[in-house]
Amino acid sequence: MPLSVIKDLSRLTFSEKYDLDCILLTTCGGQKVARVDKATKLRNPLGVAIDLGSTTIVLYLLDLVDGKELARRTYENPQRAHGEDILARILYASKNDGLERLKDEVLDVFNKGIVELTSEIGSSPEDVYFCSIAGNTTMIHFLLGLDPSHICKEPYIPCANTLDILKSKEIGLKIHPEGEVYCFPNVGSYFGGDLLAGIIASGMHTREEISMLIDVGTNAEVVLGNSSWMVACAGAAGPALEGGILTCGMRAEPGAIERVTISPEDLTVTYKTIKGERPKGLCGSGIIDLLAELFVAGLVDPTGKLEPQKCPERMRDIDGETAFVVAFENESYSKAPIFITQSDIKNLIRSKGAMYTILNVVLQSVGIGFEDVDKFYVAGAFGNYIDPEKAVTIGMLPDVPLNKFVGLGNAAGLGAKELLLNQGAIKEANEITKKITYLEMNVRGDFMSQLTGALFLPHTDRSKFPNVWKKIKA
Amino acid sequence: MPLSVIKDLSRLTFSEKYDLDCILLTTCGGQKVARVDKATKLRNPLGVAIDLGSTTIVLYLLDLVDGKELARRTYENPQRAHGEDILARILYASKNDGLERLKDEVLDVFNKGIVELTSEIGSSPEDVYFCSIAGNTTMIHFLLGLDPSHICKEPYIPCANTLDILKSKEIGLKIHPEGEVYCFPNVGSYFGGDLLAGIIASGMHTREEISMLIDVGTNAEVVLGNSSWMVACAGAAGPALEGGILTCGMRAEPGAIERVTISPEDLTVTYKTIKGERPKGLCGSGIIDLLAELFVAGLVDPTGKLEPQKCPERMRDIDGETAFVVAFENESYSKAPIFITQSDIKNLIRSKGAMYTILNVVLQSVGIGFEDVDKFYVAGAFGNYIDPEKAVTIGMLPDVPLNKFVGLGNAAGLGAKELLLNQGAIKEANEITKKITYLEMNVRGDFMSQLTGALFLPHTDRSKFPNVWKKIKA
Repeated sequence: MPLSVIKDLSRLTFSEKYDLDCILLTTCGGQKVARVDKATKLRNPLGVAIDLGSTTIVLYLLDLVDGKELARRTYENPQRAHGEDILARILYASKNDGLERLKDEVLDVFNKGIVELTSEIGSSPEDVYFCSIAGNTTMIHFLLGLDPSHICKEPYIPCANTLDILKSKEIGLKIHPEGEVYCFPNVGSYFGGDLLAGIIASGMHTREEISMLIDVGTNAEVVLGNSSWMVACAGAAGPALEGGILTCGMRAEPGAIERVTISPEDLTVTYKTIKGERPKGLCGSGIIDLLAELFVAGLVDPTGKLEPQKCPERMRDIDGETAFVVAFENESYSKAPIFITQSDIKNLIRSKGAMYTILNVVLQSVGIGFEDVDKFYVAGAFGNYIDPEKAVTIGMLPDVPLNKFVGLGNAAGLGAKELLLNQGAIKEANEITKKITYLEMNVRGDFMSQLTGALFLPHTDRSKFPNVWKKIKA
Repeated sequence: MPLSVIKDLSRLTFSEKYDLDCILLTTCGGQKVARVDKATKLRNPLGVAIDLGSTTIVLYLLDLVDGKELARRTYENPQRAHGEDILARILYASKNDGLERLKDEVLDVFNKGIVELTSEIGSSPEDVYFCSIAGNTTMIHFLLGLDPSHICKEPYIPCANTLDILKSKEIGLKIHPEGEVYCFPNVGSYFGGDLLAGIIASGMHTREEISMLIDVGTNAEVVLGNSSWMVACAGAAGPALEGGILTCGMRAEPGAIERVTISPEDLTVTYKTIKGERPKGLCGSGIIDLLAELFVAGLVDPTGKLEPQKCPERMRDIDGETAFVVAFENESYSKAPIFITQSDIKNLIRSKGAMYTILNVVLQSVGIGFEDVDKFYVAGAFGNYIDPEKAVTIGMLPDVPLNKFVGLGNAAGLGAKELLLNQGAIKEANEITKKITYLEMNVRGDFMSQLTGALFLPHTDRSKFPNVWKKIKA
């Protein structure tokens, strides 16, 4: 019982005639009476789970007694002003008061967000007692004001992997003064707490069956294992999958084309945009759909080459390159066509090939195959939106029964929420960090040799994608 | 590892090329890396033990590695300005910012003292990592700013008995920012951490033999027991024993008469003062000596009545009362005689009688006698200075073999020092609080009935003091 609470207790014991309740905060660090008051004056304690992404920050407000999610909000990470790229931000942190500013910017979002979330339900930040934060290693370093410069320099040693439970005051988080903060531990510079939260969310660490967690993004992060063992690795899958660098790529915001179908019979293109707005560009799931549909309709060949003669009305020469138009000028929001170019497709194939190869290498490192994996959890910013069938068609994900794929969506946020409600998860998280073997993908020779075969649609080895070929033939 | 240390570690790891040492703080709350630095820059960690008395505050500076006491200082408790009496201070605390002021005054002494102690050895408060504080229940309440008003009101409930280990910052103690503070727990309003520290210092809680700890003072505090059980009680023994209220009484400061002998043959009086200065008054040990010597020399009878005709040159009538002069005008510092009056002696006998009765009642509560007690630890401000033989002569302490008496001196300070060096003592202290049965002396009928017999020199029951009577006869 902290000194401040002892003082309250002594005063209230007599004024309220021994009729008091308390908020008891239980963490792996022990139990703490965080507040005492007349029962009628105590609201259910609240918790905030935070997915601290480099692009977006999601805050979830939960009732810690009944476990209900009461509200959630998504904010842009203001650090983007100093660079979309995480390396640019690390550089920014090294200059003058850069680190301090990066810290303050994120804290401001947290503190503002907590005020907004709590006022939404007629409560206040004082009623928030616990906060769990899942972010990658660099994001957590920024948040805590820890020097991130060694994360990207040999020997790639973060300041800290596993942190104790922190006091809210220690980091400047404005919740209850006795509130506590848990940051998911990272396993190393390239394996952050966000992925650990994902593991917790998937529950793969509790089951005997082997699962694979695939976090799709610029960096593909993969975890394979079960309750006894785990291997993990991350590799640059290329940013193409996120839609960012394609000519008409965009984030998954209203107006982004997220679904595409092309009729193999008459090559009619239909699409669906987020919130049904006029199309503005293609986001990750739309791009995967598009490539898969182009391939099945025979508009790209297995090497990824567009075949202009097969659909001349949608094939154009744009800046000296062949491109396939998804939405014409009269359909789009900006009156400019939305299309995919030949080099976009090449980029995309590099990304999907890298992803598939990473999955393969991880499996081979423990001597098993895709058929030995019970579940594939697909996470990441657009993990929930990927159509596994389409991702299999382009050879990004393996050709296994589709019911083995489970969309996890924002796995980091899910894990953070899980931890708010289940203190045992802290122990689980720590155990996972000890159990994980991290494979350094960039130094593995087999990665490069295997990649070559994956730079085709779906793969040079047809036997690996029997169902895809069955469909193509059909 | 606190966030601040993680930041240092990350910086120093590279600048010092992995050549670092750390200060690891181990308490019952766990282990904490309090500091990292180049080995050559780290001094041995220091600790400060504090005896927080209502009159004086003693600070001991210890090297936590080799356990040596490096320095000590004694300060007056500045709260005395608001009343010598603890009740006066509790009243003061209830008004305006009284509690805050009482707290700040003591903290100022601590902080100033720690600066002085550390600079004495060429160190600084930053090198102090742990602090143990032994004080009575009220003193600890003042120090921590806890409302003391219920300590002296029915049902006599302190704000807190056992506190967690506190952060130095939490209470405003200026030591290392990650430093920690331990306050000895109290068992109730009338059984404070100072006495608990005394138990730790005596070691009586670790032995099978039964011991008795006697803390002599305005409140006589007594603990009886061994490693399996303990009973304790406190009772007003009257302030006479501390010298405070006698006509010529004074504290044990330079010039206080601390030893007195009266030759039974020629009634020559000899005395010894503290620091050999000219006599200013009589302190506790001097008063006990004086009464014992007066009794043995036949100058007071067993009822405590002075017999003026037996030594007319030293017996005077002062303000209508008989008085015995210890130091004449020409001997004393102030040129006024130093004496003890008939009512002083009555007060003194009440005090010693109360003390003896308390000891008896405690023993009877568990059905044993003085002969069953292996050691008598005599503690308190002047515990070390009492001559047990003299105290037995007046019937304040029981007539047992003198080698059973052990002077503990400042037992609270000793216990606080012990705890700095032996973290296990924290657990021991907590176990003791659970083991102690506290007897409410003031509500025991047998106290008053037994007191009557003890209001004689040494006692109405001669069989209880065979050795004293042997001496008297001799």
